[in-house]
Amino acid sequence: VLARLLARPDLFQVTGVAVRNPGTARIPTVPRGLLCGDPAALLERPADVVVELLGGREPARELIARALAQGRHVVTANKALLADELGGLSALAARNGVSLRFAAAVGGALPALEAVRRAAAHGPLRSLAGVLNGTCNFVLDRCAAGDSYAEAVALARAAGYAEADATLDLDGADSAQKLSLLIHAAGGGSLPWEEIPRRGIDSLDEATLARSARQGRTWRLVASAERTAAGWSARVQPLELPPDHPLARPSGAGNALVIERADGEIVTLEARGAGRWPTTEAVMADLFDLSDSWGALAVETAAETAAAGWRQEGAA
Amino acid sequence: VLARLLARPDLFQVTGVAVRNPGTARIPTVPRGLLCGDPAALLERPADVVVELLGGREPARELIARALAQGRHVVTANKALLADELGGLSALAARNGVSLRFAAAVGGALPALEAVRRAAAHGPLRSLAGVLNGTCNFVLDRCAAGDSYAEAVALARAAGYAEADATLDLDGADSAQKLSLLIHAAGGGSLPWEEIPRRGIDSLDEATLARSARQGRTWRLVASAERTAAGWSARVQPLELPPDHPLARPSGAGNALVIERADGEIVTLEARGAGRWPTTEAVMADLFDLSDSWGALAVETAAETAAAGWRQEGAA
Repeated sequence: VLARLLARPDLFQVTGVAVRNPGTARIPTVPRGLLCGDPAALLERPADVVVELLGGREPARELIARALAQGRHVVTANKALLADELGGLSALAARNGVSLRFAAAVGGALPALEAVRRAAAHGPLRSLAGVLNGTCNFVLDRCAAGDSYAEAVALARAAGYAEADATLDLDGADSAQKLSLLIHAAGGGSLPWEEIPRRGIDSLDEATLARSARQGRTWRLVASAERTAAGWSARVQPLELPPDHPLARPSGAGNALVIERADGEIVTLEARGAGRWPTTEAVMADLFDLSDSWGALAVETAAETAAAGWRQEGAA
Repeated sequence: VLARLLARPDLFQVTGVAVRNPGTARIPTVPRGLLCGDPAALLERPADVVVELLGGREPARELIARALAQGRHVVTANKALLADELGGLSALAARNGVSLRFAAAVGGALPALEAVRRAAAHGPLRSLAGVLNGTCNFVLDRCAAGDSYAEAVALARAAGYAEADATLDLDGADSAQKLSLLIHAAGGGSLPWEEIPRRGIDSLDEATLARSARQGRTWRLVASAERTAAGWSARVQPLELPPDHPLARPSGAGNALVIERADGEIVTLEARGAGRWPTTEAVMADLFDLSDSWGALAVETAAETAAAGWRQEGAA
């Protein structure tokens, strides 16, 4: 993200960078004076926007809450935190007249949050169903092609889809976090992601997957929710689908989402042939959106994994 | 729009309303002091947001440009104006740190502009293809079911899909205007809609439509564009499609859009069973988005067709 910000001095001025180890971080193009090791110190400097890439719960939550309370926009990729705290943080953003953005949190190439918000603005929703995790899709496709589960996970890692620890992808936690954010966007209030029952693709056995493939059927990890009289009911589970089902169509790391309105209208979003949608791209999309609305911005970033990030991106 | 604004005093304060005939307009719930007959007079009053529903070229363009220059957000449904002037007006908005929003202009229930912007943020696009006009879809479906063209257009009008003068829908002008906005969102610069070659569904004869229906094929008015070495090339034309084509799937007033990236990723959006997506809903979606980012807002509206609008919405 930092390299991309520095490449657009017409739009963005970087006024501070917090990393875990400012002494050893390899960030050649940032003046040393901008670096600090304490995210809280960022908030004493001038900035229009704070970009939170720390991950985890604290100090990320505290940083976001204080930045919003100071009247600064926040861009974050912290899906797990939002899936617990979005209600309070978005109310705080609204009270302070600033924007809390998290395009990185859901949907990759798909404008999933926007589609849900728009459908809900037009009238109440009946249900949501999505294939929201690219790693699971990739692994299920490889298993259907004959790989073992372990081989498929290793390939997903090698292709850059899966983290070194892919547990949160494979056990459905990532999908549950995204579903929680979509339900919030649907006006369904806060359903903390831990309360969403989930079964991951790690519960499937290889013989089942191979048999389904021979029968021309496709397994997908499906996150789904319906509005009931008692609020939203949700779950994450692997489902065996016919090949022409809208949720079966995306292959590789593709995503799909089906939004059903109470009046019967159905909106479908689908990305096929999707590659990785790196966090960097989604964060930058949020920052470009903000600069569309606000002109040039002074930006601060806080990143736990900064050093790794810079190496990936080359120059910085 | 006004009735909806007045229903949410927690979010919106109406500080002015311009209508063509303030003396005779039936707007019972607005204090007379807020009404005026001159859109320009609105700009002398305090407001965070100006909603432009005048339609046509002037004084709409002048009102939008002056409001943006004063640092006010603008929400507009004026597709034809934007399809000519978006480049200049969005630059003006950016320079003044405000937002120019026009969800009403493209795509109804589909977040078409957002999807194109997001795909383009990730890498260059190769092509766009969409079914962007609900009236044409409706008329083509009715003709396929055996109605005459004139009957189908009359039904579309009775169902509220088509305006009294549906010429801009049927001759492809509406689709060309939307396509121009999508190309701009794709980073393709300004391609004024009048320069997009177009053929409407009024060019089709009923015998052709009936024969296609018997063969299980579907006609759709398709707006499409590709990036070439010389810039974007675009056109609007009726096409005969196989029934499983993504652009053939939406029925009734449904819309669809296929976005192809240069790297081969394909993003598809599709709304089936879509009813009318009234301008009011889209304008309100924009206003809710703004209030999400900015808190409570003081709003002014200018509407040429105010009197009709109030009657439609009942109270005001």
